[in-house]
Amino acid sequence: MGTCHGVVKRIAPDAEVIDITHGIEPQNILQGALVLANTLPYMPDGIHVAVVDPGVGGDRIPLALRGADGRLFVGPDNGLLLVAADRLGGVEEAVELAAPAYRLEPGARTFHGRDVFVPAAAHLAAGVPLADLGPAVDPGRLVRLELPEPTVGARRIRATVLYVDRFGNVQLNLTSAHLERVGVEPGSQVEVEVGFERYYAVAARTFAEVRRGDIVLYEDAYWNIALAINQGNAAEMFGAHVGQELRLTVADR
Amino acid sequence: MGTCHGVVKRIAPDAEVIDITHGIEPQNILQGALVLANTLPYMPDGIHVAVVDPGVGGDRIPLALRGADGRLFVGPDNGLLLVAADRLGGVEEAVELAAPAYRLEPGARTFHGRDVFVPAAAHLAAGVPLADLGPAVDPGRLVRLELPEPTVGARRIRATVLYVDRFGNVQLNLTSAHLERVGVEPGSQVEVEVGFERYYAVAARTFAEVRRGDIVLYEDAYWNIALAINQGNAAEMFGAHVGQELRLTVADR
Amino acid sequence: MGTCHGVVKRIAPDAEVIDITHGIEPQNILQGALVLANTLPYMPDGIHVAVVDPGVGGDRIPLALRGADGRLFVGPDNGLLLVAADRLGGVEEAVELAAPAYRLEPGARTFHGRDVFVPAAAHLAAGVPLADLGPAVDPGRLVRLELPEPTVGARRIRATVLYVDRFGNVQLNLTSAHLERVGVEPGSQVEVEVGFERYYAVAARTFAEVRRGDIVLYEDAYWNIALAINQGNAAEMFGAHVGQELRLTVADR
Repeated sequence: MGTCHGVVKRIAPDAEVIDITHGIEPQNILQGALVLANTLPYMPDGIHVAVVDPGVGGDRIPLALRGADGRLFVGPDNGLLLVAADRLGGVEEAVELAAPAYRLEPGARTFHGRDVFVPAAAHLAAGVPLADLGPAVDPGRLVRLELPEPTVGARRIRATVLYVDRFGNVQLNLTSAHLERVGVEPGSQVEVEVGFERYYAVAARTFAEVRRGDIVLYEDAYWNIALAINQGNAAEMFGAHVGQELRLTVADR
Repeated sequence: MGTCHGVVKRIAPDAEVIDITHGIEPQNILQGALVLANTLPYMPDGIHVAVVDPGVGGDRIPLALRGADGRLFVGPDNGLLLVAADRLGGVEEAVELAAPAYRLEPGARTFHGRDVFVPAAAHLAAGVPLADLGPAVDPGRLVRLELPEPTVGARRIRATVLYVDRFGNVQLNLTSAHLERVGVEPGSQVEVEVGFERYYAVAARTFAEVRRGDIVLYEDAYWNIALAINQGNAAEMFGAHVGQELRLTVADR
Repeated sequence: MGTCHGVVKRIAPDAEVIDITHGIEPQNILQGALVLANTLPYMPDGIHVAVVDPGVGGDRIPLALRGADGRLFVGPDNGLLLVAADRLGGVEEAVELAAPAYRLEPGARTFHGRDVFVPAAAHLAAGVPLADLGPAVDPGRLVRLELPEPTVGARRIRATVLYVDRFGNVQLNLTSAHLERVGVEPGSQVEVEVGFERYYAVAARTFAEVRRGDIVLYEDAYWNIALAINQGNAAEMFGAHVGQELRLTVADR
């Protein structure tokens, strides 16, 4: 809903708004954090607001941050902002959004996006200094998500599903460097174990290199390794969900 | 679809467009009227177009209105605009969108949004006076929706479902004042009767106060009382639909 | 996702972006081509980017075109842009998007929308001449979709489903001129054969002219003939899909 756009325009009429997405699954902080981190390099400098906030109305702190490269971030202190901010060099300064002058009053207890986060972002866009929004918070004490690390052996990788997109493509916690270490290259056959099931995927650069219905292991558009089925739904076939472990083994040649 | 944005920009290149929502259920005039009324206080002053128009091509009148606070509204004369306009002080002036110069010609019989309502709004944004769009209509003769009123007893309330959002939260025709009259306060147990079924809800300020799976009676972000299930779908559990009656009874303490 | 908006704004901060739709079915080039052609007359002059691109990463050429009326188009050479460009007078000039300076580098192999098409459009918006984007391509050699032609007899029409919208309305490859040739007028009964099933539709100008549940044959808002069910889903009833043949026969009076 455009309520939040309206709130921006009432406070900062000249601000431009770009919606990155409204498609994050309810409550899925990790997915939100990864999408923010993935898309941020393609966004103009600005004030980046993110709200995936299952703790709204509880005691998690509402935050505004300045990253090392000067970008500003606004959102809840639940790890959502930190994957992006840390990839871009870390957090320089953080404040708690406590100043009533920069919130909508009376605010609803269940919609801090509209009443706390977006007003803060709009006031920043209108020139209010970060420090005016509330008391400083130690950047070292902010909540950070634990991103699962893969285990890489001689021919095997134990990986974890980071998220599943709307096409059913399954993003893993791997980059092309991990695949190179076990000798995967375009055309390699890779055995995928999910629970007690085994599947055979082929490593490829694009879907155009494989046949319809093939399982493909590829570097996606955000430089993460993912599994997909050409013109099909990989997540459904694997029964894959966020946090699930998979094992990849390079087949003999 | 962005067709209507294009129509605005061809007529009024400097106008800015904010989409409140494209998520109203087909034909659901009441839901559209309530969403418009709820979100309008968060929108900048402007020209507010709403189209939920099951009677398109029939004899319902296409309207433009000026509200008591100066905002302009454009849409069909089926009650859609009036909940919002009446809450903000009523209608000062209304006209029928009859002037061919301010419609797209030839217009389609089934898409007045594109060919009648949005062009009128864009011409208003470009400075055309309201009275130029067509003949005056008596504000007292506009179609108004009948909003169901609750029945409030000593310990019971008979309420009606106004709408169900995409999370399955069930909005009722109640405000916190109604709950106070029957003695509901945070932590109160409330029996909910839907048809022949009974459920037990807890009154709370936020979902953070209750357990996963609890049924919650709370004031939503637009100051309406609603029923939800923490991390679940209340509408599915209750089989709730718009217009359905529920009975709420405060449990003994 | 708003990634592409971000890419535009980084290259051409003053450009305005209008999203026509994000609702094209995956891989459905014909649907994308028809929606672009249908909506373009309602859009301001500008640079029109379309991406339905099952061949991404293969050998289809990335294109920018200038149409006869001066509009610019950007997208893959798979027929997507040509229905619109041809309806507006044809292609005057075409180039292959080969110049690395106007792509994002390093680009992903599976997201030319972000890395090739949108950057080209943004550079055009910022004033880069079309010819700078890459070598000329002969407009006569561009890929064109074969649009099915109807067969019109004395009282019968053999038509093809072009697309099905989200309401289940079934758009055919017919205009009102075809219906006039077989004597269909408002109120006419029309037999619809789909496979071995027969249905009876009524020709009407608007849904307000028929009863709930009636099958309606009407001219839709983009001047195509379509089949719908008043407050129902025609595509589900017919089991209709893109490319399917139907036979329409005018009933005796």
